[in-house]
Amino acid sequence: MKIELLEYQKRIKQTKERMAASGIEVLLVTDPANMNYLTGYDGWSFYVDQILAIFDDEEQPIWIGRTADANGAKVTTWLYQENIIAYPDQYVQSDVRHPMDFVAEILTQIGQDKRNIGVEMDNYYFSAKCFQQLVKGLPNATFMDATLLVNWVRLIKSSAEIELIKRAAVISRQAMVAGIEMVNEGVRGCDVAAKISHEQLSGTSQFGGDYPAIVPLLPSGERTSTPHLTWTDEPYQKGETVIIELAGCYKRYHAPLARTVHIGQPTPNMKNLSDIVVEGLNECLNFIKPGVTCEEVEQVWRNTVDKYGVTKESRLGYSMGLNYPPDWGEHTASIRKGDKTILLPNMTFHLIPAIWSEGDSFEVSESFRVTSSGCESLVHLPRGLVIKEDGMAFETLNPVI
Amino acid sequence: MKIELLEYQKRIKQTKERMAASGIEVLLVTDPANMNYLTGYDGWSFYVDQILAIFDDEEQPIWIGRTADANGAKVTTWLYQENIIAYPDQYVQSDVRHPMDFVAEILTQIGQDKRNIGVEMDNYYFSAKCFQQLVKGLPNATFMDATLLVNWVRLIKSSAEIELIKRAAVISRQAMVAGIEMVNEGVRGCDVAAKISHEQLSGTSQFGGDYPAIVPLLPSGERTSTPHLTWTDEPYQKGETVIIELAGCYKRYHAPLARTVHIGQPTPNMKNLSDIVVEGLNECLNFIKPGVTCEEVEQVWRNTVDKYGVTKESRLGYSMGLNYPPDWGEHTASIRKGDKTILLPNMTFHLIPAIWSEGDSFEVSESFRVTSSGCESLVHLPRGLVIKEDGMAFETLNPVI
Repeated sequence: MKIELLEYQKRIKQTKERMAASGIEVLLVTDPANMNYLTGYDGWSFYVDQILAIFDDEEQPIWIGRTADANGAKVTTWLYQENIIAYPDQYVQSDVRHPMDFVAEILTQIGQDKRNIGVEMDNYYFSAKCFQQLVKGLPNATFMDATLLVNWVRLIKSSAEIELIKRAAVISRQAMVAGIEMVNEGVRGCDVAAKISHEQLSGTSQFGGDYPAIVPLLPSGERTSTPHLTWTDEPYQKGETVIIELAGCYKRYHAPLARTVHIGQPTPNMKNLSDIVVEGLNECLNFIKPGVTCEEVEQVWRNTVDKYGVTKESRLGYSMGLNYPPDWGEHTASIRKGDKTILLPNMTFHLIPAIWSEGDSFEVSESFRVTSSGCESLVHLPRGLVIKEDGMAFETLNPVI
Repeated sequence: MKIELLEYQKRIKQTKERMAASGIEVLLVTDPANMNYLTGYDGWSFYVDQILAIFDDEEQPIWIGRTADANGAKVTTWLYQENIIAYPDQYVQSDVRHPMDFVAEILTQIGQDKRNIGVEMDNYYFSAKCFQQLVKGLPNATFMDATLLVNWVRLIKSSAEIELIKRAAVISRQAMVAGIEMVNEGVRGCDVAAKISHEQLSGTSQFGGDYPAIVPLLPSGERTSTPHLTWTDEPYQKGETVIIELAGCYKRYHAPLARTVHIGQPTPNMKNLSDIVVEGLNECLNFIKPGVTCEEVEQVWRNTVDKYGVTKESRLGYSMGLNYPPDWGEHTASIRKGDKTILLPNMTFHLIPAIWSEGDSFEVSESFRVTSSGCESLVHLPRGLVIKEDGMAFETLNPVI
């Protein structure tokens, strides 16, 4: 299962249309997800500078990266070999020369130095220094902010992408069930994380897994007051809540999923909180269909939980799909107040109405695809608080739907 | 095993000394490793903007991050709660407001807006946009490039840090042995990656593992022509080379390690290449002691392998220790021509004299600590090409030293 050349060409075309609409003649892509989306490039080489340059007057983009990684571009992309350009290793993490000096030189050599150049100003892999060096090296260019330009092209998924995400969802479910099964009094968080990671990478006997853009988030006890803590090597104790947030990943596509486990009987307040959040989530999923906006979905959530006095400050969800560390979110549409993005078929979101507090915390989420008439959850697994007592197995407690 | 408050205070003091030497009055740290180094902050929240501000005239730094993550700062750092400042969620991935606008506002409110402000210009987590917004929001400040300022403080490790790295090394060895054991004809790369990841996260029965800053790199066959490809779900074939590069990680400290496995008998050329590279590596390790420079180590490598006609374009190694994705290297000293860093006791490096080519490729590495009179490899495991035949176990082939 792979993306066909025709699909890459369509993506390039759509990118060029957006470039034209913004007056951008040359687009320098540094986001590794955007680079993969447009060329197939896939390697853990984004820790050094690399770019994909798209020209309004050239059919093929050029890839510029470190010499050692150029063979990676040859192996993983559809680009002509002559469009893969390598900078010498002396540019890597040097205090006297910068990879963007090399990029500026190449653009000058091929006569692309006096143009309107779009750069992804707000991307992990385009530092302040990268921009400074490009501006210095291309004094006759006009720079324009092209942050998220390609990300917006990624918003609606193709059938091939949906198939990849569905495989990721199979892995998500498998990893989540394994994690839930294992959480119990006396078990160490690191061992649960290890089991989850094993399931994520191994995948199924039909297809293997890829590394997710975020490691399993596995806060427990007081650490559930905040979403982004990982795990410790302390054994879980009776009465603790354990939150599991993870994603299966297949060929860089994700299907994030969160569930909450309680070791022993929860307090009535905790049980109540989980019921309210699940009700809010269900109402949103029932409401979602093509034509509604992101902020309307959030309003449904708020209308549902307001009456119980539950409030949530952080956004309710976000567009997701193809990605690399450190985030599986696409940074485009968010399900929150003020976001007027209209939902359309084959958009894919992670809907995560989690409540983190210094008291009780509960997290549950679904990855969904907008269908022609509504939405479908990509994973089928009970949503409520999972109560683990006396080592009883999860499957016994919650028959899987 | 944890870092004591006194050690954090010493690190802050050393950082302030470097600030003073560079005329920096306020340092804005965005590198998550530097943030952890100075405060203990640990969470997968670096995918949104967050900073640590160190003031020359204040004892304690302040941490500014997303509201949902502020509790993470309370749980993991030694900072006073009033020094943990949260920005509302509406700043997250928004196209109308930026977290750095909030940072500028806070600095203005506390009268730190007319100062010499150092920023990490060349860091993954300080985008071109971050800098632009700070400059806009703090028109009376003078900005200075403080890239790597804290990284250089990290170069020589404390005894506590060495203990953490040694635990990471125990995990590295365990994960590597498990990976090598498993590589065989018919086995899928994704299953080997899963096993390695399981060992990395689970750790030992005495201490659990943390997530490494880079996932297992596991190129095989034609994919060994380049260092940064991960794995596929294709079964390995007889005659293939499989390169394993990984790191055990303990409380964010790493001990990277690489070995190469050949399925079936290698060609004489491949065997020869591996012998030469191991000889070069051994010569370097024999040479290293306090007082020699990074470039002298590289020269020893070159002198050793030149006579066999082997050349290597990329650098031979780099300083490593505490880190977060996407890199476990510290971006300071590199073992390469022109790097005049003098090796001193308790510096820790990853020495990786790998040869990648479209013909034969061979990778072997050691993480080492400079001692008072030489250096010690952090992992003990045979360095030569591992030849797997007929499913024979690794331990049988290469008795572990």
